[in-house]
Amino acid sequence: MVNGIERPLDLLNESKGKEILIELKDNKQLVGTLLAFDIHINIVVDNTKEIVNNEMKRSLGLSFVRGNTILWISPASSKK
Amino acid sequence: MVNGIERPLDLLNESKGKEILIELKDNKQLVGTLLAFDIHINIVVDNTKEIVNNEMKRSLGLSFVRGNTILWISPASSKK
Amino acid sequence: MVNGIERPLDLLNESKGKEILIELKDNKQLVGTLLAFDIHINIVVDNTKEIVNNEMKRSLGLSFVRGNTILWISPASSKK
Amino acid sequence: MVNGIERPLDLLNESKGKEILIELKDNKQLVGTLLAFDIHINIVVDNTKEIVNNEMKRSLGLSFVRGNTILWISPASSKK
Amino acid sequence: MVNGIERPLDLLNESKGKEILIELKDNKQLVGTLLAFDIHINIVVDNTKEIVNNEMKRSLGLSFVRGNTILWISPASSKK
Amino acid sequence: MVNGIERPLDLLNESKGKEILIELKDNKQLVGTLLAFDIHINIVVDNTKEIVNNEMKRSLGLSFVRGNTILWISPASSKK
Amino acid sequence: MVNGIERPLDLLNESKGKEILIELKDNKQLVGTLLAFDIHINIVVDNTKEIVNNEMKRSLGLSFVRGNTILWISPASSKK
Repeated sequence: MVNGIERPLDLLNESKGKEILIELKDNKQLVGTLLAFDIHINIVVDNTKEIVNNEMKRSLGLSFVRGNTILWISPASSKK
Repeated sequence: MVNGIERPLDLLNESKGKEILIELKDNKQLVGTLLAFDIHINIVVDNTKEIVNNEMKRSLGLSFVRGNTILWISPASSKK
Repeated sequence: MVNGIERPLDLLNESKGKEILIELKDNKQLVGTLLAFDIHINIVVDNTKEIVNNEMKRSLGLSFVRGNTILWISPASSKK
Repeated sequence: MVNGIERPLDLLNESKGKEILIELKDNKQLVGTLLAFDIHINIVVDNTKEIVNNEMKRSLGLSFVRGNTILWISPASSKK
Repeated sequence: MVNGIERPLDLLNESKGKEILIELKDNKQLVGTLLAFDIHINIVVDNTKEIVNNEMKRSLGLSFVRGNTILWISPASSKK
Repeated sequence: MVNGIERPLDLLNESKGKEILIELKDNKQLVGTLLAFDIHINIVVDNTKEIVNNEMKRSLGLSFVRGNTILWISPASSKK
Repeated sequence: MVNGIERPLDLLNESKGKEILIELKDNKQLVGTLLAFDIHINIVVDNTKEIVNNEMKRSLGLSFVRGNTILWISPASSKK
């Protein structure tokens, strides 16, 4: 999977349809399936779960996450 | 519903006229019916209710919410 | 009133001359009559009152409020 | 005075040479005579006094205030 | 001195070679001689002294200060 | 290695495929292998480990880190 | 040295190859040799040392520091 990544957005492209972990400002996290993103790193996630202090706080379904809220995005399948 | 989402703004387009949950900075939340949005993610919501710590604090009616205040937006109907 | 709102700024246009509630960062609020706004959501309000913790702190008369200070704006007449 | 205000910057234009109250981030305030401003809302104030917690902390004379520090500006003469 | 100020940057132009007080975010202050500035309000100051809680913390010599760190700049000679 | 660095991005170019330390806002750190970056300093890192207070908190695999979250980036091999 | 400074970036140009002190947000400091900078004030420093509360916390070697993290930069040789 690593081989195809030449630009940062390539990782997001490869992660479409897969589960991702999204680290947000203020120690908030979302987990869900990446459906779409744009160049501002606005993203749409399905089956979103909000995680606070490692515990699931809420199940949100679909969500639109604004790019400049995001610290990092990590595809769950790449976890080792 | 998921099928039609190719770009992040598609989710907002599909959510017009529907109830959305808006997570803001500083642990504030608004719930209301999405009427309009623009590319800055400025949005107008009707029947707005302000939620603080999971309790309804105020009923605001119509409100104009500035985009860069918003962490995420989730349509209530997608909650599972 | 809702019918005429296709873009977020339509709500501000309809609110000219009417009382609005302005929620600012840092838990500050202003209440006053909307006189003018621009695309940066800079606004001018008359009969401005500063509200802190639900109590009126000061009466300010006219005020120029910078757009990126604002979380949301809600016309008082729409409150239900 | 209100009649002439069609755009937010009109209020600043009308306030030149008059005393204004400037609310800044971090609960700081400046009071002084508005001499000049630009489209970034950078302003120059004369006879500037720094107010912290409603008490005058320092007398600063002339000062250049950067626009994106400013929450709101209110001409003292409009106070009611 | 006031007479020549039509635009905010005029005050900085007139302050070249003079001692200025620079109020920064996070309650930090610098005092020094203004040598240069640009439209981003990046400035270079000589004989810089860092002031914290009204006491001189360090002597820095020359320093380059980034514009968006700055709350306000006041020429010492204008203090009354 | 130092010789080839004329512009800041040259250091990131030379660090591709190497382990880097990423200092983020809010006292967070990531360690991992730099795969890609763009002019916004968005980066993709492999074998990412999240470090909090000098202890490894989580192993993340691949991650996309948004540029404006980053304070500094240091290639591990340059540590002396 | 002061004579050659007409624009703020001139100070950074003159400081190449010299030791600089970098004051960052959140009371962090870096000390090191300036190798390169760009118009965003992104900089590359060699022999970087991280200073927290006036004590050396870590030796980092080369580092890329993002411009909008920086409060000020002061060449060590100018300290008086």
